[in-house]
Amino acid sequence: MSERARDAAARLRAGDTAALARAIRWLEDGDALGASVLREVAGAPERAWRIGVTGPAGAGKSTLVDALITELRRRGQRVGVLAVDPSSPFSGGALLGDRLRMQRHTLDPGVFIRSMATRGRMGGLASATHGAAILVDAAGFDVVLIETVGVGQDELDVAELAHTTVVVSVPGLGDEVQALKAGLFEVADVHALNKADLPGADSAERNLRALLDLETQRREGEPRWAPPLVRTVAARGDGVPALLDACDAHRVHLAASGEGERRAATRAEQLFYALLREQAPQRLLARATDLDRTIAALRAGEIDAFAAAEAVLAGGGLPAL
Amino acid sequence: MSERARDAAARLRAGDTAALARAIRWLEDGDALGASVLREVAGAPERAWRIGVTGPAGAGKSTLVDALITELRRRGQRVGVLAVDPSSPFSGGALLGDRLRMQRHTLDPGVFIRSMATRGRMGGLASATHGAAILVDAAGFDVVLIETVGVGQDELDVAELAHTTVVVSVPGLGDEVQALKAGLFEVADVHALNKADLPGADSAERNLRALLDLETQRREGEPRWAPPLVRTVAARGDGVPALLDACDAHRVHLAASGEGERRAATRAEQLFYALLREQAPQRLLARATDLDRTIAALRAGEIDAFAAAEAVLAGGGLPAL
Repeated sequence: MSERARDAAARLRAGDTAALARAIRWLEDGDALGASVLREVAGAPERAWRIGVTGPAGAGKSTLVDALITELRRRGQRVGVLAVDPSSPFSGGALLGDRLRMQRHTLDPGVFIRSMATRGRMGGLASATHGAAILVDAAGFDVVLIETVGVGQDELDVAELAHTTVVVSVPGLGDEVQALKAGLFEVADVHALNKADLPGADSAERNLRALLDLETQRREGEPRWAPPLVRTVAARGDGVPALLDACDAHRVHLAASGEGERRAATRAEQLFYALLREQAPQRLLARATDLDRTIAALRAGEIDAFAAAEAVLAGGGLPAL
Repeated sequence: MSERARDAAARLRAGDTAALARAIRWLEDGDALGASVLREVAGAPERAWRIGVTGPAGAGKSTLVDALITELRRRGQRVGVLAVDPSSPFSGGALLGDRLRMQRHTLDPGVFIRSMATRGRMGGLASATHGAAILVDAAGFDVVLIETVGVGQDELDVAELAHTTVVVSVPGLGDEVQALKAGLFEVADVHALNKADLPGADSAERNLRALLDLETQRREGEPRWAPPLVRTVAARGDGVPALLDACDAHRVHLAASGEGERRAATRAEQLFYALLREQAPQRLLARATDLDRTIAALRAGEIDAFAAAEAVLAGGGLPAL
């Protein structure tokens, strides 16, 4: 443990958000200082409630997160927000503009907002975001809102970090997006039907309720929690207090039913695998010798990728060229 | 090299599709026999043309692949198809039903169709699919069609395997899906506007052409290839010969411009990283001792995920409990 990491952890615990932002940046960058700070604060029990907000692009997740911040502040809660940037070029970067709206909270010392992004080919988003959630908790925030944009393994890994996951739908998306949403049902603890003032909201609600019935049947035998559906118009704040109440009810359910403990166990195991998935490639690469020469030989067609990868995987030197 | 792998490679080279299917299964399962067969055939130069077919769910990719098989057979080409199954629970499994249509080709010995799927938490889809493409090539097929369903890092890795990537769009998807499609532009060599008999096809074509103009500006300075847009009605085969002609033109461009060689170099490097990303976690896990006990301790909260992962990553034993 370096002096610098210990100092950063102390500042962070005292609620210094600049120190918090710096430590999160270290995690994103894969800087060893980040892991050191994390180890320093890791002993403490989880205190902050983590609410995940996910759903298809265009559902208004950022606007909803913005409205949730306002409502949580009204309830006297300090709020950290981790907005996970799309790591895939398939996701539309233009959507990030929506997030600017949230920035009006940045002058409020009770609000901390951070966009999380992957860097480089080898990912690391899930472990960085999980680590960031722990740091935000350690800095004294009561709630951590984790917003994920887009879908994919990275986002799934991140969704698993939340205690309560809100899946946001919206009236009027096409059939193909409905198919995606059907997949989202598996992770939903609470459903928000956002933009509920749009035409088609009533039929969207009927469709969602029909899917919810199917899902409730599928979950037969699991601890009883029927995910509620709350209509919201996030841009006006309508339905947002009811949505938070539903999240609170889920929190109470988790504690009372023992489901919270079961999930914590699963979460720990999943984080372990996510850490391995994200960090194992770098570790093996870091041990490889002559990497530049191998990449050049690969690109020139002098060796094939399978042989080069095998050499790194075996933990030895690279193949003779 | 085991006798069994050598025998499998010999059968496969003789065009035995049962041997081909078995070897691909080994790759998917992570069976060492798969890697052995691959090493046996790896020396040979690439011969088969790999055409990737990708796009959002609901665009009719499977129907288009089916129509491409028919047209390629008409041109006397032997066709291998690798249909990559969604690995994410966010993707709709119902869509797989579309693929049944293709099965009518299975009685044709000039056609080989295989669904690729990931197994287990640690993935492996990109390396298995890349290996499968090499094996299909070695078995004497002239064209390998690689169909990807859904979006995400896995699919991106797979998209990189193709020589020519066809991105399929369809009229009438919502704005949010258009945003996703905008991301797909980066990987498109040829655009297919499928279901072009639907209302809205003309305005969809105008939108696509406007995006194409933007993309052409973005690619300024790169070897000149303006991705053509071909309208198709895959269910009737309309436009499919023109689509294949466009793919052929791209193939000629790659060879003539030197871009093909540049891409081959990038592909080799990317495969190397994909292999590492996919296989490094398993390798480190395989070396770990007492894994079951660690997972149990993790789940019980006796150790944290960061410490457990660090022990495996460091390549040593697990932390004292």
